[in-house]
Amino acid sequence: MKIQPSVRYSHTLLSQFLQNGDTAIDATVGKGNDTEFLSQLVGEKGKVYGFDVQEEAIKYTNQRLDDKNLSKNVTLFNTGHENIDQLVDGSINAAIFNLGYLPGSNKDIITKPDTTLTAIKACLNKLEGNGIVVLVLYYGHAGGPLEKNAVIEYAKSLDQKEFSVMQYQFINQVNCPPILLAIQKNSN
Amino acid sequence: MKIQPSVRYSHTLLSQFLQNGDTAIDATVGKGNDTEFLSQLVGEKGKVYGFDVQEEAIKYTNQRLDDKNLSKNVTLFNTGHENIDQLVDGSINAAIFNLGYLPGSNKDIITKPDTTLTAIKACLNKLEGNGIVVLVLYYGHAGGPLEKNAVIEYAKSLDQKEFSVMQYQFINQVNCPPILLAIQKNSN
Repeated sequence: MKIQPSVRYSHTLLSQFLQNGDTAIDATVGKGNDTEFLSQLVGEKGKVYGFDVQEEAIKYTNQRLDDKNLSKNVTLFNTGHENIDQLVDGSINAAIFNLGYLPGSNKDIITKPDTTLTAIKACLNKLEGNGIVVLVLYYGHAGGPLEKNAVIEYAKSLDQKEFSVMQYQFINQVNCPPILLAIQKNSN
Repeated sequence: MKIQPSVRYSHTLLSQFLQNGDTAIDATVGKGNDTEFLSQLVGEKGKVYGFDVQEEAIKYTNQRLDDKNLSKNVTLFNTGHENIDQLVDGSINAAIFNLGYLPGSNKDIITKPDTTLTAIKACLNKLEGNGIVVLVLYYGHAGGPLEKNAVIEYAKSLDQKEFSVMQYQFINQVNCPPILLAIQKNSN
């Protein structure tokens, strides 16, 4: 048994904090890994919203969810996650972001600090007490360190009365393994 | 439900990686919290070795374990953890260190980088494959940042072919909450 890598630990956290009937956002759908996982966690009474700028990601994920009969509680938007605030009504219990590029895919299509921070802020504003926003930061590409640093600096600046920010990472590896951040809204 | 603080997460990791019959070291016994936890995890067929320079810590913990009928699998040494290599024979499956000062106790009695690193190296040398050394770093005291930095730099320098080093910490809190490091020996 191994200490969980960041991507796997992101799912461990989501499964600890999401319950049947909850609402969640997959801010970076990609191949739909997280969307599928969230759909199963929140169940038929729950709701998942997914965002991706790439049309093929949305098509691929729609098909994937259909094949597994999981599409009923999912709404996918073929647009950037900076539009979360306009497109998602009400509060959420969790959100997940995979930031950087889609592993195994086109490294030219990457997330960018401005839109990423807009999306993170929208999710934090919508969070219920004890809800979490989980961020998996890939940064081994051009532009990666810039985005990683912007996101970590923003997360560090969050008021500890309102949020708890946890960082999880492997620190002795040469190839920039992803860093996990988890931002939890304190309950009152 | 809250994201686990570092101290609590150290126990989560130990409970994931230790099994009945295993051998573990508590390198900083203090009031015996971790010693008791390890004793329960490894069970009657297992073995726990504890170290503390303070005689009262050893007395207190011996009494605590006796009261709970947990002393049979524990051997406590009233000496510094730099003597682990001489006093513990054979391999181990886990070790835990609480570094800095004992919370709620005398802040003048602190662990020091030299002896700390000697002890960590001894534990790493004794680790079985997939075994872990868990370090909880308190550093909000004089000398704390020096020790914390020495330990983190050492952990970062470990060869990723031999060990995986994970760091877990809260990053938006003003009062230096402890940092958790987990060093796992890779299996071959």
